[in-house]
Amino acid sequence: MKVIDTISQFRKEIKNYEHPIALVPTMGALHEGHLALVKEARKTAKTVIVSIFVNPIQFNNAVDLEKYPRTFHADSKLLTKEHCDILFYPSVDEMYPSKSELKIDFGYQNKHMEGKFRPGHFNGVGIVVAKLFNIIQPDLAFFGQKDLQQCIVIQQLVKELSFPIDIKIIETKREQSGLAMSSRNARLSEDARAVAPVLYMSLLSMAEGLKNNNFEETKAKSQELLSLTKQIKEEYIEVVEMESGKVVSKFEKGKKYGICIAAFVGNVRLIDNIIVDNE
Amino acid sequence: MKVIDTISQFRKEIKNYEHPIALVPTMGALHEGHLALVKEARKTAKTVIVSIFVNPIQFNNAVDLEKYPRTFHADSKLLTKEHCDILFYPSVDEMYPSKSELKIDFGYQNKHMEGKFRPGHFNGVGIVVAKLFNIIQPDLAFFGQKDLQQCIVIQQLVKELSFPIDIKIIETKREQSGLAMSSRNARLSEDARAVAPVLYMSLLSMAEGLKNNNFEETKAKSQELLSLTKQIKEEYIEVVEMESGKVVSKFEKGKKYGICIAAFVGNVRLIDNIIVDNE
Repeated sequence: MKVIDTISQFRKEIKNYEHPIALVPTMGALHEGHLALVKEARKTAKTVIVSIFVNPIQFNNAVDLEKYPRTFHADSKLLTKEHCDILFYPSVDEMYPSKSELKIDFGYQNKHMEGKFRPGHFNGVGIVVAKLFNIIQPDLAFFGQKDLQQCIVIQQLVKELSFPIDIKIIETKREQSGLAMSSRNARLSEDARAVAPVLYMSLLSMAEGLKNNNFEETKAKSQELLSLTKQIKEEYIEVVEMESGKVVSKFEKGKKYGICIAAFVGNVRLIDNIIVDNE
Repeated sequence: MKVIDTISQFRKEIKNYEHPIALVPTMGALHEGHLALVKEARKTAKTVIVSIFVNPIQFNNAVDLEKYPRTFHADSKLLTKEHCDILFYPSVDEMYPSKSELKIDFGYQNKHMEGKFRPGHFNGVGIVVAKLFNIIQPDLAFFGQKDLQQCIVIQQLVKELSFPIDIKIIETKREQSGLAMSSRNARLSEDARAVAPVLYMSLLSMAEGLKNNNFEETKAKSQELLSLTKQIKEEYIEVVEMESGKVVSKFEKGKKYGICIAAFVGNVRLIDNIIVDNE
């Protein structure tokens, strides 16, 4: 595996690799969730590129940015094992040689869920993903379902700016407890980790309840379940209709829905979701 | 010359052409100014693509959009003569199959000159240029200096989103009278056309005056010159420092400046500029 840290070197080097080229963009601190993306990319593409870049402009919280786990040495070993071809690992100065002034506004998505609770977050995601797409120029790019609204936003970016890239969404990996794998889990205290699986439980209970289409009651029950655990502070539970990407307040037959949650567990903010096919 | 009107057909076809590929994006109604871009592209690139697309989302004025001249047959003939390889000529539905929701905000540039007087204009320019860059994937793209702030905005787009494209700015073509060539000139009445060269004169007089660095006085004189002609209604005269792209109110030695004007001449809005090297 080649490790490349400048854009110009990457552009030179990539000419020697075969298409289709797959990109797996990450912020490092790799876990099985990331590796599932790399494995899937490896199955589909001739060349697999993983990027590791902790993108400062998508953090709306300076502490979250500072505490974001950085484990380059371990990451690099894992990627070698997965037969990644190139690890693109640029510095902040390489990606942002001057202050970023251009902003991308995703409209509706900016006003709901992550867009609402993390002002500026999706602008940062949009900018860095557009940059990576233009630097790497992949044929396919792999993203984790765990960041469901991010997937929606990236599909919007690709569609509205006509990027010639096929976006693949890969299912969330979970620990035995049901807790969604996340780099931020490393920051959970032992107590917080013990209660964190309640997030997933509340999603399952909501999916169950929604089949009876009693929306408000079901949501209230899930929120109650969360509030039983003092260490958990819910930010939102929302249901998204998958085709439109819009937040809804009822279930219709024949549609797919994403049930999404964001909550602080101790002092760590986690998100999770499940997709339900309402056949 | 091949004429292609769908994105999917273009993506198939372009594989048969050699790099470097140059793009000249236009809104049609071609004149010598456009042809100068095509000639320059022809000198530099193996493959020359011209796009013709009257982009509705960059018009803040419905009448301006409706009255924008459309002369496909003549354009196509001219481009054949200039040895253009592919004319990309998509419909509005092809470029915007659904309502465009994503917005690009260029920050500073949105608040000055065209950005200020044409709300939403640079968002429309940014979206369509990003789309064309992602569809055509050129190595070089040619733009006319006549739309100076547009050039600044596109250079910002390329830099901030890391498009691997070399932007070339080509000098403005003028009629004998000094009037900058523009597709909108076709809409000038005879009377309006007779006075329109005053725009260029006021730029020249401003350049002359500014060398003495009496900024406010020089600007006032140019504005007075314009106001002598009843048919001309100035929107702005501004001086832009070329390296930063910022509007300034004084001249410094050793810097390059763009002197920019926008005015209604009769009922047609025209813009023009000259670049001055203050050695």
